[in-house]
Amino acid sequence: MTENIQIHLTKTPTGALTLEHFEQKTAPIPAVNDGQVLIRTVLISIDAAMRAWMRGPTYRPQVMPGEVMPAYVLAEVVESKYDGLAKGDLVLGEGLWSTFSVVEGRRMRKAPPYRPLSHLMSVIGIAGLTAYWGMIDIGKPSEGETVVVSAAAGSVGSIVGQIAKIKGCRAVGIAGGPDKCRWLTEELGYDAAVDYKAGNVAEQLKAACPNGIDIYFDNVGGAILEACLFQMRNRGRIVCCGALSQYDTDAPESPKGLPGLVVVKRLRMEGYVVLDYFNRTPEAAQELLGWMGQGKLRIAEDIVEGLENAPQALMGLFEGTNRGKRMVRAAPDPA
Amino acid sequence: MTENIQIHLTKTPTGALTLEHFEQKTAPIPAVNDGQVLIRTVLISIDAAMRAWMRGPTYRPQVMPGEVMPAYVLAEVVESKYDGLAKGDLVLGEGLWSTFSVVEGRRMRKAPPYRPLSHLMSVIGIAGLTAYWGMIDIGKPSEGETVVVSAAAGSVGSIVGQIAKIKGCRAVGIAGGPDKCRWLTEELGYDAAVDYKAGNVAEQLKAACPNGIDIYFDNVGGAILEACLFQMRNRGRIVCCGALSQYDTDAPESPKGLPGLVVVKRLRMEGYVVLDYFNRTPEAAQELLGWMGQGKLRIAEDIVEGLENAPQALMGLFEGTNRGKRMVRAAPDPA
Repeated sequence: MTENIQIHLTKTPTGALTLEHFEQKTAPIPAVNDGQVLIRTVLISIDAAMRAWMRGPTYRPQVMPGEVMPAYVLAEVVESKYDGLAKGDLVLGEGLWSTFSVVEGRRMRKAPPYRPLSHLMSVIGIAGLTAYWGMIDIGKPSEGETVVVSAAAGSVGSIVGQIAKIKGCRAVGIAGGPDKCRWLTEELGYDAAVDYKAGNVAEQLKAACPNGIDIYFDNVGGAILEACLFQMRNRGRIVCCGALSQYDTDAPESPKGLPGLVVVKRLRMEGYVVLDYFNRTPEAAQELLGWMGQGKLRIAEDIVEGLENAPQALMGLFEGTNRGKRMVRAAPDPA
Repeated sequence: MTENIQIHLTKTPTGALTLEHFEQKTAPIPAVNDGQVLIRTVLISIDAAMRAWMRGPTYRPQVMPGEVMPAYVLAEVVESKYDGLAKGDLVLGEGLWSTFSVVEGRRMRKAPPYRPLSHLMSVIGIAGLTAYWGMIDIGKPSEGETVVVSAAAGSVGSIVGQIAKIKGCRAVGIAGGPDKCRWLTEELGYDAAVDYKAGNVAEQLKAACPNGIDIYFDNVGGAILEACLFQMRNRGRIVCCGALSQYDTDAPESPKGLPGLVVVKRLRMEGYVVLDYFNRTPEAAQELLGWMGQGKLRIAEDIVEGLENAPQALMGLFEGTNRGKRMVRAAPDPA
């Protein structure tokens, strides 16, 4: 129980991530200084944005070669030299791909008393809050509108379409492969699904959205953003949530039609970062949990066992191997 | 006085416009049917969007080969079979590159009693209203912000920067050549100018906007949009007004950084079409004329004499030969 496994980034990736970009080492458990806490990692959020962190500065500094990979984690406090936290507390915040880590106490927040703990990473974690604020504050859906979401079987997308349905919209999901597409329509209540791996996305979209697209919730950028742009209705909104297709490549694509289609169709493309909504988490969590309680919102979790599997878990996001919110379990839930 | 000169589009241009795309003919004066009026064209607005009309449907149907070139005009009613208009009335609306034309009376509106008539094409015409609504309703400037505008010496851009100054912002204009740049700073009150023909736009922008860009008023798209995107501040706004650089070419460029920078910088890119604000013209006109009266807003007009020069006048927009609002005078002001 005192072995400290850490996974480092070995070099800045240019093309697709491979196992060579990561190295697992055993390290001593670090000492705790004043204001700090030692945490044991329980659950690690695996997010596409982590690939962007390796490319350069985003809303956080770039992750540099040699560093232990940072991640949003749920962890248990093992030792505290910070007044606000005590041994045994469960905390949320930026940790590491590491069994144990030392973090500044003021940068962590106490996890709300909620079980199962995995829900703190999914429905009321980054995924759920990202879906919620993107739809509610940026997309602003009205009843009867058509909402299209890409990476629809992913952590955020699987929730976005369900919020669209709750708001009285037509929900269309874009995902890879017939199994995921069937899952969207049969299990999550999407009205239609577009299988981008089957080709001809524009034609499929046209069939699924006969009146055009009012809101496109964009998780991927690139060619799928381009296909949606051309089918936006006047005064449509594009929620710029992420650019999954552009992170894990050395040849990012630039969609055609920008800014021309934004002008003539009077579109609004707007980006956001969920951290900016941090202070409003309680209102979002209350509504999301309410919908779950009423059976209107199903949460899919995709939990990979073992810290040592974190690299594959992240690489898999770009191959689309996950369904719903992917996380890595580094330790069993504390009692 | 009864000769009717018309200028036709001969073929759909793919690359840059040339004189071969236009043909001048003499035609009989058309007969007026019920509900219609015969108008004599006085002033013709020359707008970059006209080049986009030739490419395909925009907010109006495509202009097809063989058609007389349409245009926004100020004209005098010569004969009326429409109840709402009488001989001698001055009207505004879509007319043609033609000495005389027959139009549906209900599609024209009476010009307000305002002199000089050219102001109905500039400060309180499409140019002024486009600048006004783009800044006020889309850009929403706050005191102390930095506003960058491209095609800053053009019809819209020359007004945008002055509105920025009126709103207490730092105004930076992008234009081609040292003469235009000097004109922006010495005559129009811009704080700084970037000469895109001098190269290294990114470095020039950085020097002119040490704190980054809060509002980029985009008239051009392409490489200049890309340069500005990379220097936007968090929560910046891009007013998507036009894509001048993309109309007159067969090789449109797609800016890099979309949608990635929109996400991480929480940007809003929003398009608009000034026609949508038509019903609110009085409030905009009152404010624009008020600023003129107070000496805070200078209007630059670039009037080309003679309908036969309309093709060159339009082609010149893409070479940047105009300064301020370009229009063609097809006939002297009516008494």
